[in-house]
Amino acid sequence: MIYLEVASRIERLIEKKSLRVGDRLPSLRALSREQNISLSTAFQSYYHLESKGLIEARPQSGYYVKFSPTDTFDEPNCCKPAREALPVSVDEMVSSVYYNLRSPKLLSFALSAPDSSLLPVAKLKKSVIHALNHAPDSCLGYEHIQGNVHLRKQIARLSFNWGGTLSEEDVVVTAGCMEAISFCLKAITKPGDAVATESPTFYGIFQVMESLGLKVVEVPAHPQSGVDLNYLASAIKKFKIKACVFVPNFNNPMGSCMPDENKKQLVEMLAGYEVPLIEDDIYGEMFFGKSRPRTCKTFDKSGLVLQCGSFSKSLAPGHRIGWAVPGRFIGKMLSLKRMSNVATNTLSQTAVAHFLQNGRYELHLRNLRKALHTQSLLYTEAMTRYFPDDTRITRPQGGFALWVEMAKTADGYKLHKQALRHNIGIAPGQIFSSQGQFYNYFRMSYGLPFSAKVDHGLKTLGELIEKQRDKPTARR
Amino acid sequence: MIYLEVASRIERLIEKKSLRVGDRLPSLRALSREQNISLSTAFQSYYHLESKGLIEARPQSGYYVKFSPTDTFDEPNCCKPAREALPVSVDEMVSSVYYNLRSPKLLSFALSAPDSSLLPVAKLKKSVIHALNHAPDSCLGYEHIQGNVHLRKQIARLSFNWGGTLSEEDVVVTAGCMEAISFCLKAITKPGDAVATESPTFYGIFQVMESLGLKVVEVPAHPQSGVDLNYLASAIKKFKIKACVFVPNFNNPMGSCMPDENKKQLVEMLAGYEVPLIEDDIYGEMFFGKSRPRTCKTFDKSGLVLQCGSFSKSLAPGHRIGWAVPGRFIGKMLSLKRMSNVATNTLSQTAVAHFLQNGRYELHLRNLRKALHTQSLLYTEAMTRYFPDDTRITRPQGGFALWVEMAKTADGYKLHKQALRHNIGIAPGQIFSSQGQFYNYFRMSYGLPFSAKVDHGLKTLGELIEKQRDKPTARR
Repeated sequence: MIYLEVASRIERLIEKKSLRVGDRLPSLRALSREQNISLSTAFQSYYHLESKGLIEARPQSGYYVKFSPTDTFDEPNCCKPAREALPVSVDEMVSSVYYNLRSPKLLSFALSAPDSSLLPVAKLKKSVIHALNHAPDSCLGYEHIQGNVHLRKQIARLSFNWGGTLSEEDVVVTAGCMEAISFCLKAITKPGDAVATESPTFYGIFQVMESLGLKVVEVPAHPQSGVDLNYLASAIKKFKIKACVFVPNFNNPMGSCMPDENKKQLVEMLAGYEVPLIEDDIYGEMFFGKSRPRTCKTFDKSGLVLQCGSFSKSLAPGHRIGWAVPGRFIGKMLSLKRMSNVATNTLSQTAVAHFLQNGRYELHLRNLRKALHTQSLLYTEAMTRYFPDDTRITRPQGGFALWVEMAKTADGYKLHKQALRHNIGIAPGQIFSSQGQFYNYFRMSYGLPFSAKVDHGLKTLGELIEKQRDKPTARR
Repeated sequence: MIYLEVASRIERLIEKKSLRVGDRLPSLRALSREQNISLSTAFQSYYHLESKGLIEARPQSGYYVKFSPTDTFDEPNCCKPAREALPVSVDEMVSSVYYNLRSPKLLSFALSAPDSSLLPVAKLKKSVIHALNHAPDSCLGYEHIQGNVHLRKQIARLSFNWGGTLSEEDVVVTAGCMEAISFCLKAITKPGDAVATESPTFYGIFQVMESLGLKVVEVPAHPQSGVDLNYLASAIKKFKIKACVFVPNFNNPMGSCMPDENKKQLVEMLAGYEVPLIEDDIYGEMFFGKSRPRTCKTFDKSGLVLQCGSFSKSLAPGHRIGWAVPGRFIGKMLSLKRMSNVATNTLSQTAVAHFLQNGRYELHLRNLRKALHTQSLLYTEAMTRYFPDDTRITRPQGGFALWVEMAKTADGYKLHKQALRHNIGIAPGQIFSSQGQFYNYFRMSYGLPFSAKVDHGLKTLGELIEKQRDKPTARR
């Protein structure tokens, strides 16, 4: 698409400050002439940049640069490395945080998931009805333990996007990504083992570890490039790490993306130590760049990478369809599945398979990526306006979340409680560490399309953060 | 229904041998006069008994007793009590048995589940479509961790049938009964603990125990009355039993039903020792008698009974909807659910709730019970004809299965392999014990409606058993 190509070149000029906020852009006629494009394509380019919040049209005057994605707060700081492997207990706090986050009145920035307006509700419904009408017994019977074979084929085909060559025999369908991670971790560890995670990382990973009685070693992760590989190498020996659980692509909460070179290095290093890696790739398809990043599985030669994914973030949260590609641990994984809930929902598997078979997924993903990228910029722009100057936020390269660092005197959990009184939900930083780090952080999901209500919510949040600065709390 | 009342009185006369096989029954006219019922009601009564295989119409001659449910083999023997608490490892054998049991060509007597022809396929489909059309976002969003509130209300209402007074707050929805048992067991034990089961019992219970690293103490169970309470009392002290997992109503594979008085005694005894009981009540609604038996939960005053159930056997196996009523352990149970797969399928929960709200479940269950009772009698009658004289089989009071004891020289696992070559699936006795008992037993499910094909399959099975007698195998 020419208009996108032109728009993205203008975007890069804005990012590099060649065009600064307030600068006037060429007129539509000038743009059309200079770039040798039609007037309507020129208009589409500006319209696209406008919808992303980067430029604005001023009546009778033309187009002006409104916001630069780099013209915002600094990025958050890295955390301190772990001093010991510790047992996990975050579930109680996670549970207390999410207990009140279900009210429909709530403006929720707390769930790292797409708003349903971004999902293909009507088309997926068609696929469910197709499954009801065409599958034997309207999908009433048990599905295979390993999962619907058509669905596994489609999941295997998705591997082409990240340079993989999976077959349906490599894939095990699960009830969501959490279940996949849970079975994978159980397959490769025993209670008391030390497992490495990124810091910060998704609280669900800590919950699974807590339920399996594992100890955690938090590895500092950079907001742009992810896991600190040097620290990891030393930690493996020091803490006798038995497995790693990482989210290399668009880590939740930071949106960081481990460079492909680092992925290769990580996989080779772990193979040397014979340490398995669980790769949570749930956000891999939600990239804002030109193409889907590779995965660690791409570089896996020894079968030690257990990749997990899901349609929960990209298509259908409530259908609970995820999967694992457990490499050399597939036998153990199937046995755990059989021993815990036998098989995954037949109807949902059949419907999702049908949706993918018809090429609807790729089309939907293209729209979803565009919407999420736009939302991430609009949220960032508003937060830059409303939040105190010493705020730091990430510049996510994909996914659903912004990771916000406040002044050292602020408290994320307290902010969560105050925001709740204003019907605003956020996820306090405390639940993204098992070692009490990130007390002055919080995660903002931009899964909800930007609107006046969202803008007002961000303004309120900014005011609450400002108030915390006036009355610094005692450190917890 | 008058015709059922008359038919069931005749059935009891046949069972008590007041009417013997070959005896002529009163003519329709005589029955109508004697019982003061219409001719058509008299016909309905005989038609009902005929469909159950108990009487037959001989042309130009009238109705004759064809088969008495008591006129069959003796019941199987009880097993030996456990001498020690042992770790479990049945999964490998279960997996090898079920690996080949999925072929559509197979005449399957191996799955303890209803054939899809006995399920309300069309009506449940309507409920799914209703959910798609009426629920927000066609059920794409995450459901509450505890489960859909309307579904929990309906499950709570079902408790009225067994003398319970549950509310929706007591119920946790799970992905099938296995998951409910798995979370309940995990909530109340730690690896290495000794847990009591019935012997024989459902292999899935052993699989869950194996995955949790538990030890099993098998308690002898009687084909009519279930668990031997005296032995259990001594075993609790001797083996330091930390929990029990029993199937008091229509135990799989025996179809036994623990008398309500025993249930009460069991619950009181366990309360005295502070030992929790997981009650798998998955077959409770599939009774052949006049009314639904009570459950152990009925008599639970201390919250130590964790009841588990499911719609997998009665309504929709593939939808994977089960539940737990975990008593005082509900907090821990919810936490385990949250930490493993977050929530259960939204669409299936909404659809099943709708099906129940419309009173369709009770109606369907009435038909299902009748069909299963009839099938159990027809299978028994055919097996009586085809199986060797020293066979012993149970007389199930509900559920889906007959438990068959062969001569001491026979081998269930070998029979399973031989039957497979004839495209017949059975479940060998070996997988119903973790202590190598029941090698000369197998489980026959009568979930498939009786037909000429079933009759022929049973004949073939009889011949295979007969052959094993000629060439006794070495004891494994």
